[in-house]
Amino acid sequence: MTTDPEPSAGLLRYGALVTDGLRRRLATVAHDPYLAAPMADYPTRVGKALRPSLCLATCEAFGGPLADALPSAVAIELLHNAFLVHDDIEDASLLRRGEPTLHRRYGTPLALNAGDGLALQAMGTLRENIELLGPRLADRIMVEFDFMSQQTVAGQALELGWCRDNRTDLEPDDYLDLIMKKTCWYTTVLPLRVGALVGSGGTAELDPMIEFGFHLGAAFQIRDDILNLVGDPGLYGKEALGDLQEGKRTLMLIHLLAVAEPADRRWLLAYLDRDPARRPREDVARVLELMVSYGSIGFAGEFATGVARSAMTSMDAAFAGLDDSRARRFIGRLVPFMVERAS
Amino acid sequence: MTTDPEPSAGLLRYGALVTDGLRRRLATVAHDPYLAAPMADYPTRVGKALRPSLCLATCEAFGGPLADALPSAVAIELLHNAFLVHDDIEDASLLRRGEPTLHRRYGTPLALNAGDGLALQAMGTLRENIELLGPRLADRIMVEFDFMSQQTVAGQALELGWCRDNRTDLEPDDYLDLIMKKTCWYTTVLPLRVGALVGSGGTAELDPMIEFGFHLGAAFQIRDDILNLVGDPGLYGKEALGDLQEGKRTLMLIHLLAVAEPADRRWLLAYLDRDPARRPREDVARVLELMVSYGSIGFAGEFATGVARSAMTSMDAAFAGLDDSRARRFIGRLVPFMVERAS
Repeated sequence: MTTDPEPSAGLLRYGALVTDGLRRRLATVAHDPYLAAPMADYPTRVGKALRPSLCLATCEAFGGPLADALPSAVAIELLHNAFLVHDDIEDASLLRRGEPTLHRRYGTPLALNAGDGLALQAMGTLRENIELLGPRLADRIMVEFDFMSQQTVAGQALELGWCRDNRTDLEPDDYLDLIMKKTCWYTTVLPLRVGALVGSGGTAELDPMIEFGFHLGAAFQIRDDILNLVGDPGLYGKEALGDLQEGKRTLMLIHLLAVAEPADRRWLLAYLDRDPARRPREDVARVLELMVSYGSIGFAGEFATGVARSAMTSMDAAFAGLDDSRARRFIGRLVPFMVERAS
Repeated sequence: MTTDPEPSAGLLRYGALVTDGLRRRLATVAHDPYLAAPMADYPTRVGKALRPSLCLATCEAFGGPLADALPSAVAIELLHNAFLVHDDIEDASLLRRGEPTLHRRYGTPLALNAGDGLALQAMGTLRENIELLGPRLADRIMVEFDFMSQQTVAGQALELGWCRDNRTDLEPDDYLDLIMKKTCWYTTVLPLRVGALVGSGGTAELDPMIEFGFHLGAAFQIRDDILNLVGDPGLYGKEALGDLQEGKRTLMLIHLLAVAEPADRRWLLAYLDRDPARRPREDVARVLELMVSYGSIGFAGEFATGVARSAMTSMDAAFAGLDDSRARRFIGRLVPFMVERAS
C-alpha cells in the first residue's frame, strides 16, 4: 500500500509551497524598520511545515486542488510562528530551531511586537479566501480559526497557570485536556478540518476530524515532550531539559509525582516549589534521572504509541469513502512519524 | 450651535453600549481558568471609550443606525486593550488606568497570553459584521482593520527600535510619522473610516478621514505625552514621568535635543545612553526640569493646539454635506477635548 516510506518527501513538497506563500505575505512589511527582520526570522528558519502540510494534503485527499487550501495553510504557519514567538517569551526559552529565541536576538519588546505582527498577517491571509472560495466557505474557515485560536490561548493559559500556581495534583487526563487545547486544535484538528472543508467544497463531515486530530496531535506533543528530555539537541532545536527547568506539567512529571517513593517525591515537590530561574543544573539533571529510574519516560513513550495506534483507526473513520491517493498515504505516514521523529 | 458643552455625556452614552458589547464577548471565555480574569481586567477598568465612541458617532453622523457600527466599535476597543497589555509589557510600565499593569498583577506570561486572547476576540467580533452588514461591507471593514493593525505594529516597532538603538537624530517630522502609525490609525483614522463606511452603507468618501484622523490623533497623542510629564497622576492613570524613564522619543525630547546648550545636551545624551532601568530618579526629574526651562513642553502644547485647529478645518472637509446632528456636534467637541483633557 504505502509507496512513500517516509513523509519527508511530502513535507518538503508541501513545505516549499508554504515557504513561498509566507515570503509573499511577509514582503508586505519588508520596508518597516525594526519589524520586517524580526517577523521574518522564525519563518525563515527551517521548520517541519507539519501543520500546513497536513492542511494541504487533507485538501488533496478530499479531492480539492492544492491551491485552494494555500492561504489557509499559510495562515496556519504564520499563526504557528506567532505562537512560537510569544511562547518562547512566556517560557523564557533560549533556543528555537537551533538558534537563539527571538527575544534573545531582538529583545523582548521588539520580539513581542513582531509576534503580534505575525498573528495579524495570518488574519489578513485568511481574507484571501473570500475571493478564492467565495464568502460562505471563507467565513466557515474564519469560524474554524476563531474557535481554534481561542482554544490555543485557553490551553496556553492553563499550562502557564499550572506552573505559576505550582499545581501538583494533576492526572494524565488533565494533561490530555491541556494538550487538546494548547496543541491539538492548531496543530492537527484545524489543519484537518479546514483541509477537508476546502477539499470537499464544504460538504465533508468534519466531526471525525476532532478525534483523529486529537490522537495525532497528542502523539506529536508527547513525543515533543520526550524529545525535550532525551532528544539529540542538534536535531531537536530547543534547549535540552528546558521543560524540567520550567517545571512543565508533562505526562512524565505527572507520572513521576504519582509513583515516586515518599523521599523522592518530597525532594521533587521542594524542587517545583523553587523559582524556575533558581533551579540548579544538577537538580534539573536529577529530575531527569528520577524520570528514567521510575520509568516515567517509558510510560509516556508507550502512551504515545498507544495514541498513535488509535490515530490509525480514527483516521480510517475521518477519511472513510475517499479513494486512495498520494496525499492520503502521506497523512497515513504522518501517524507513525509523530512518535518516531527525532526533530 | 453646540448644545453639548462637553463630550463627556457622549462618551458615557456610547461607552455604556461598548461596555455591554465587551461583556457579552468576554463571556465566551468566562470558564477558562487563568485566561478569563486577566482578559477581563483592562476592559473593566474605567477608560474613556474614545475610539469606539468616535466610530459610533461617525456612523450616526453619516445617517446610519448605531447598532450597525457596534461590532466594529467593540472590536476596536478589544484590540485597543490588547495593544495596551502588550505595550505595557514592552515598555515595562507600572500603572494603567490607575492600577498595576496586567503583567505586574498576573506575571508577564499570563498577561502576554491574555493580550493575544483579546486581539483574537477582536477578530472574532468583526465576523459579526458578515450577518449584520452583508459580506461585501464586512470584508471592506476587515480590510480596514488589516491595514490599520499593520500600521500599528509598524509604529510600535519604530518607537521601540528608536529607544533600543538610542536614536538622537530625530526631527519633529519623524515623530509625526511615528504617531501617525502607532496612534492615529487605530485611535482616530480607523474609527472614522469604519464609522463612515457603515453609516453611509459603503458610499462615503473615506480619503478625507485620513487627514482629519491624523490631526485629531496627533492632538490626542501629543497631549498624552504632555500629561505623562505634568498631568495630575490621580487622573492620568499611568506612572508620572514613565516616558522619561524609558527615553521615549516625544516631541518634547526631540525639541530639547535640538535646543539645549552644549553642556545640557551632553548630559542628556549621557542620560539616554544608560539602560532605562538604571536611570536614577533625580536624573529623570532633571530631564523634566530641562524640558520646562528650554520651553519644550510649551512648544509641544502649542504644536498640539495648532494641530487641533487644523483638525477643525479637516473635519469640515471630512463631514462635508452632512446635516447637523448631535453625533456630529459630539465629534466637533472631541477636537478641543483632545488638547484640554486631564485624563
